[in-house]
Amino acid sequence: MLGKLNSLALLAASLSVVSAQYYQRLGTCPKLGCVLPPDQQDFLPGQYFDLRLEVHAPVNGSEAFNSGVPDEKFTVTIAKEGGEAKSVAEFFSLDEPEIEKWTFHWYEDLYAEDAKTPTFVNVASKIYRRIALYEPGNYQVKLTYYNGETTTADWVVRPLATAKKAKNVILFIGDGMTTNMITAARLLGHKSINGKYQSVLQLDDFPVVGHQMTHSVDSFITDSANSASALYSGHKSTVNAMGVYADSSPDLFDDPKVETIVELLKRVWGSAWGAVSTALLADATPIALTAHTRSRYAYGPLIDQALNSLTNYTWTNHGGPDVYFGGGADQFLPGSGSYQGEDYYKAFADADYDISLNKTSLTALSNSSKALGVFCKSNMPVWLDRNVFTNNLNSFTNDPSGVKGPAKDLPGLKDMTIKAIDILNERGGDKGFFLMSEAASIDKQMHALDYDRALGDLLELDDTVRATVNHLKAIGELESTLILVTSDHGHGFDVFGGVDTKYLAEQKTDREKRRAVGVYQNSGLSQYTVEKPGISYGTGPNFPVNWDPRYAIAAGLGANPDHRENYRVNNATSRNPASTLAGLSSNDYYVNPKDNPDGFVVNGTLPTSESQGVHSLTDVAVFAMGPCQETFGGVYSNIDVFYKMANCLGLARPDANEGGKGCAK
Amino acid sequence: MLGKLNSLALLAASLSVVSAQYYQRLGTCPKLGCVLPPDQQDFLPGQYFDLRLEVHAPVNGSEAFNSGVPDEKFTVTIAKEGGEAKSVAEFFSLDEPEIEKWTFHWYEDLYAEDAKTPTFVNVASKIYRRIALYEPGNYQVKLTYYNGETTTADWVVRPLATAKKAKNVILFIGDGMTTNMITAARLLGHKSINGKYQSVLQLDDFPVVGHQMTHSVDSFITDSANSASALYSGHKSTVNAMGVYADSSPDLFDDPKVETIVELLKRVWGSAWGAVSTALLADATPIALTAHTRSRYAYGPLIDQALNSLTNYTWTNHGGPDVYFGGGADQFLPGSGSYQGEDYYKAFADADYDISLNKTSLTALSNSSKALGVFCKSNMPVWLDRNVFTNNLNSFTNDPSGVKGPAKDLPGLKDMTIKAIDILNERGGDKGFFLMSEAASIDKQMHALDYDRALGDLLELDDTVRATVNHLKAIGELESTLILVTSDHGHGFDVFGGVDTKYLAEQKTDREKRRAVGVYQNSGLSQYTVEKPGISYGTGPNFPVNWDPRYAIAAGLGANPDHRENYRVNNATSRNPASTLAGLSSNDYYVNPKDNPDGFVVNGTLPTSESQGVHSLTDVAVFAMGPCQETFGGVYSNIDVFYKMANCLGLARPDANEGGKGCAK
Repeated sequence: MLGKLNSLALLAASLSVVSAQYYQRLGTCPKLGCVLPPDQQDFLPGQYFDLRLEVHAPVNGSEAFNSGVPDEKFTVTIAKEGGEAKSVAEFFSLDEPEIEKWTFHWYEDLYAEDAKTPTFVNVASKIYRRIALYEPGNYQVKLTYYNGETTTADWVVRPLATAKKAKNVILFIGDGMTTNMITAARLLGHKSINGKYQSVLQLDDFPVVGHQMTHSVDSFITDSANSASALYSGHKSTVNAMGVYADSSPDLFDDPKVETIVELLKRVWGSAWGAVSTALLADATPIALTAHTRSRYAYGPLIDQALNSLTNYTWTNHGGPDVYFGGGADQFLPGSGSYQGEDYYKAFADADYDISLNKTSLTALSNSSKALGVFCKSNMPVWLDRNVFTNNLNSFTNDPSGVKGPAKDLPGLKDMTIKAIDILNERGGDKGFFLMSEAASIDKQMHALDYDRALGDLLELDDTVRATVNHLKAIGELESTLILVTSDHGHGFDVFGGVDTKYLAEQKTDREKRRAVGVYQNSGLSQYTVEKPGISYGTGPNFPVNWDPRYAIAAGLGANPDHRENYRVNNATSRNPASTLAGLSSNDYYVNPKDNPDGFVVNGTLPTSESQGVHSLTDVAVFAMGPCQETFGGVYSNIDVFYKMANCLGLARPDANEGGKGCAK
Repeated sequence: MLGKLNSLALLAASLSVVSAQYYQRLGTCPKLGCVLPPDQQDFLPGQYFDLRLEVHAPVNGSEAFNSGVPDEKFTVTIAKEGGEAKSVAEFFSLDEPEIEKWTFHWYEDLYAEDAKTPTFVNVASKIYRRIALYEPGNYQVKLTYYNGETTTADWVVRPLATAKKAKNVILFIGDGMTTNMITAARLLGHKSINGKYQSVLQLDDFPVVGHQMTHSVDSFITDSANSASALYSGHKSTVNAMGVYADSSPDLFDDPKVETIVELLKRVWGSAWGAVSTALLADATPIALTAHTRSRYAYGPLIDQALNSLTNYTWTNHGGPDVYFGGGADQFLPGSGSYQGEDYYKAFADADYDISLNKTSLTALSNSSKALGVFCKSNMPVWLDRNVFTNNLNSFTNDPSGVKGPAKDLPGLKDMTIKAIDILNERGGDKGFFLMSEAASIDKQMHALDYDRALGDLLELDDTVRATVNHLKAIGELESTLILVTSDHGHGFDVFGGVDTKYLAEQKTDREKRRAVGVYQNSGLSQYTVEKPGISYGTGPNFPVNWDPRYAIAAGLGANPDHRENYRVNNATSRNPASTLAGLSSNDYYVNPKDNPDGFVVNGTLPTSESQGVHSLTDVAVFAMGPCQETFGGVYSNIDVFYKMANCLGLARPDANEGGKGCAK
């Protein structure tokens, strides 16, 4: 329905319409004038960011306005509390930017999508690039448009420290890891006698625990891009976005940016930094350290940003990672997966990186040179396949050199992390280092409902943290290093009993099979820690001695596609719980008949277009050890992890030390 | 199969058979000789306990032995590390107790149960009652039986403080409450703008967070009886048991006991103590403060134990609670629900208790007298029915006076808790007090998959904690009071998206209905905090302003009976997700056709004999504020909550101060 409203009374009514819940016109912008960063955002003193203003004129739909003509004469001011409001251009000593214009569309709800009736919105916009607020305090930005309508954004520049308390920070991220999963991993990997654990996780020995809230800036469920971005920049973002506030423009690389911890650390202290991940290196969690885009899936360009920093706008040069270890050869081999088809092994080598493509050469890397290690295509095979079901490795075609065949000489998270520490410690020297190390497949395997593979990678993370503590002690850096272990979001996983997998498999009907699940007292004791004659994986302490006991854990999530459960470990390949029916829509999933054929059917709770599980709401834990550990107790937002790290690293710059107050040139 | 084994070689083989997982012969006793308390248990110096020994002779089954004749000539010694082993009787200066004998049976697995082939076990046993270990250190108990077979139990008496650091302790228990639920409750009750909460939970302002592991002594999933017992006594127990280690004897009240925190506090300091619960007062969490039994369902006798302490054995007199507020009139009204049919209102009145049966008289209670408040039969109606859907209160027949009709003048958890503090503070005086306050229906409503009612009661708990902090400040007791908020176990609950409930209801098929669930960016923003014209519940800040928004949260558990979801609040009565089919087994549950008829079916993952959800494995959070708060960070076992509280209250008595070392008379 097209509408035309001119009176101010109707204007007010129209502008108070809140976007529908399911879809949003622009998540951070319930009114027709948008300020990005929006209301209620926090900043580190001296942190660079861009400021975008948008004025929306919906052409049709419930908010249709002004015949679809956006106000190009909008004005914007900024004032520090107690001070005078100045135009943004004056405040930051900038030239007034050009007006930009574009059109986008969205659906107001599912009915509109079913009816194929999008709402079109015309936009007038300006963006002020690379500005910074230095003095701590409260600021208000006011956008005025459509004859006196206003959108305000109240911001806080936090008073934070300028001196370093920690020389180094190591941030471990168990992607998708919740307290529920940590509890289950402990049950599998550690033996208890009459309720007392005989050994515990390394995480259990951390002195400080906190909880962080993971929601996005505009939705209560996050993805790994925008939650990583919150951890790294102190600014929440939108699903799929990182290092930017998502705007409505068609360009995925012009959104208003925020400076990240590695950019700040390089600019302020010249420290070394690195990333380690069991995912492809272009995946959200590692790439969000350097990425500024609304689309996490622009893998090729994002690897270029990781090496060369931003090239489309003037921005902080992070110098490239000193260490970069993970999967994702597709973005390095010249071809369709790499940026502009270029050879990024060569690009890194030209920038004086030593290149490693397997565990053997990883171990032999010099500690004094920058290092790139790419050990396979796509995500790295999981711990369970690398250590227990090793034959599965042959089923991959993931050799990182581009040869058709499997990657065979694979390092684990521990190998990569310890080597990364050695290089960063030597290269950082007195300036210290920042390392992010990610156990990515906790999340990826929870998506696949493959609980065993997820928990195996969680135990590998814990084993890596244990080795890290010991290694830091050995090289004399434990006291000077803040170690954090946290997550970016959850999955609604929990264990609810034990299950007699033999009994389950032998029953005829789904209802009879469910009888095999034992709850409460019938959950019994963990059989994963009971040795089975003839079974030895050689995986050492802190891992299960039997991955396929008759009495397994019964576990699940509240959010599923249709699937079938038998609760046994999948010893073949990674799990594929749901599949499409032959000849039907490729976006409509049913139980995969090849997955657990002797199990019982659990019909899904998710849209049938979802083939996997999805993220959940739960706060996630933060485990802290080292300098500033005491500041990580209690409950806080994910952005506070950034501010606490920044405070411990003395990254605040409350005086305009580069080019004076205002535009930092 | 009956067996007879005589050679020592076969003996050894037989005795190493581990009980099957699903069912266990006796959970703490994988061998044929049992020591209770078993191996790996911890003790407070001077804490009373009983020591039971059992020797098992299975008549049939996989462990059949000695023609089913148990060794009555077993011997038992105890030694402190570095000291000489003495007979238990000599060590504790006791007469040797009589041999007891009985027979019990169990099923080795589901096949045995299906075949109706129980295994019978003959038992010879002794029990040493009311003993204590005073000196901190390591002890070993050794049971010798069957010609040299041994079962050992290694115990630790922890070195803990004898001086008080906190005058008062208030322990809040959100029954079944997980971090996932806390996150969801925050989303419903608190408004956020662009990812920043404008107000937060009181729990979010606690300075210290820890995690505790909730598993039982003999199963990894706990119930509320044995987990409460662990929190109150420092000893894990078995599902349905509290204040005892479960033995195999037929008598539910002769199991080996452990002293609880209120018994210790009364004996050591003469402090006041009380319990508040929204459950029946005989329910597991409140009653475990004083109960010593293997069966939590012996409601009548347990209320007698709460008033009169134990009468069947010499034991600590806890003096009766100074305050006792909750539901459960059935155990107080004379009749089938009360102990020996007696009138327990009268019994409490005869023991100088003031009695209150409604909110009005609760408010008017003197602060100087002991007080019993019983406000309804069974569990108290939940916050949502008391505050939002108030008409539902008329559907109950729960008047606590025994009149047929609804209880109408009901206090909430906050009313009960604040009044309890006033009475305890006056009665405890300089000796201080201990209060346990339980939000019971978080658990009860999660069992019913009634997420809204569970989260409503969680918000009521948080509101109660907030009022408690403010009230303690007002009466000058905040600095002297340790406040803990924790849980006893979890349910595998999480929120995974938003849902368009209107769209869901209007679709025709289950698969189409699922399309209404929006995940990730489509979860959008909480609509529970968005005012709806014409809707006002008058429930003030920190609670939702709209409980039934079109865009609701989509949530669920991994463990379910068959049920149907529409994700809307149930505005009629508490949820009953599964029901039996007319004319079929009363123990075989299907989707309740009356529950959410416009929703989609989620078939269950639990045995079809389960009509509700069940508990889960996850560690639960501990929030701490006040003296000793710093000792509650990190990760630990539920029993450590007891030892940390006992340490803060100075309950250790490392010298045998009553009757000398050994038996405490």
